[in-house]
Amino acid sequence: MSDVPFDTEDQAAASRARQTNDPDPEVGGIAVDRLRSIIERVERLEEERKALGSDIKDIFAEAKNAGFDIAVVKQVLRLRKKEPAEIEEQETLLDLYRRALGM
Amino acid sequence: MSDVPFDTEDQAAASRARQTNDPDPEVGGIAVDRLRSIIERVERLEEERKALGSDIKDIFAEAKNAGFDIAVVKQVLRLRKKEPAEIEEQETLLDLYRRALGM
Amino acid sequence: MSDVPFDTEDQAAASRARQTNDPDPEVGGIAVDRLRSIIERVERLEEERKALGSDIKDIFAEAKNAGFDIAVVKQVLRLRKKEPAEIEEQETLLDLYRRALGM
Amino acid sequence: MSDVPFDTEDQAAASRARQTNDPDPEVGGIAVDRLRSIIERVERLEEERKALGSDIKDIFAEAKNAGFDIAVVKQVLRLRKKEPAEIEEQETLLDLYRRALGM
Repeated sequence: MSDVPFDTEDQAAASRARQTNDPDPEVGGIAVDRLRSIIERVERLEEERKALGSDIKDIFAEAKNAGFDIAVVKQVLRLRKKEPAEIEEQETLLDLYRRALGM
Repeated sequence: MSDVPFDTEDQAAASRARQTNDPDPEVGGIAVDRLRSIIERVERLEEERKALGSDIKDIFAEAKNAGFDIAVVKQVLRLRKKEPAEIEEQETLLDLYRRALGM
Repeated sequence: MSDVPFDTEDQAAASRARQTNDPDPEVGGIAVDRLRSIIERVERLEEERKALGSDIKDIFAEAKNAGFDIAVVKQVLRLRKKEPAEIEEQETLLDLYRRALGM
Repeated sequence: MSDVPFDTEDQAAASRARQTNDPDPEVGGIAVDRLRSIIERVERLEEERKALGSDIKDIFAEAKNAGFDIAVVKQVLRLRKKEPAEIEEQETLLDLYRRALGM
């Protein structure tokens, strides 16, 4: 249990007694500064991630405005994540499956 | 059609004729540099977004390691997105619904 | 406020007084049976939805077992949601974009 | 390779020669009926899953209409997936974390 940041009530009382010299003040046995730091770092990163999502949306809007077909641009992006050999193999199979199904 | 970055075949031929002096060389009437720029910017932002997701995961691993309950830390993060009045109203209703259902 | 299933405290007291003859007994002014019905119907549908997801997974496992390439089967499923004319137009554009990018 | 449903070209030619008596006719060495069955079953299940999603949405609309708070109804649904002991433990921790953060 030594890695648990909160204690039983007695331990919490003892931890409050130590608190004046403690670099991380505790409430109810919780390492407050540590928790706050974790929460705030996640919030900051989530905000950045949200901003990136918004930037990506803007680029697609620009692409659409410039006359590109967004669905096809996304297909290009998916293809660029694959190896050329993988692309070729899947295209061969796709043709085969489509002919088999009369598509 | 003036916002379409590719042309009919005749226009494409004309555009290829202009190509030597064109700041954005075209292939099949496509504004190649523009398309490449769009693709590469999206890829860069998606990589950054992926890296952020990985950083957030690391912080949760750190939190777990420090003894915090991750599910509860995520509840705290959700609550911090709400106004205090909204939190209080929803907690009152949640108590009411739970009592109604005998939970 | 007539469509709100809970009342102010006075109304709640009045509703509790009526409760013996009420077809939908109330707790704290909540239409209990209505709430329970809503909750249970959602739970039942969510279970069915989960079961369907599991059935779909089983079919893909069967397809893989039978030697089909699952990624390509999924491409077929995506294509079948589109009109033939849309498929053809997007394939033409995809070829154009890929040649433009030297892919 | 015995579980692969398509063959090399020679095998495909042989399989086409057998085709008249074959219970599952093949195209390019593909077990056509098998592939079609897989595709159609997935499509049917995906349609049912979509219909369930639409039914669930309708119930939430009904709940909202009846005056219930949808966000809180969803919290109730989440709680009902947990054991009472788990709920209590998480509520205790949530209180602790919130007090630590001054929320």
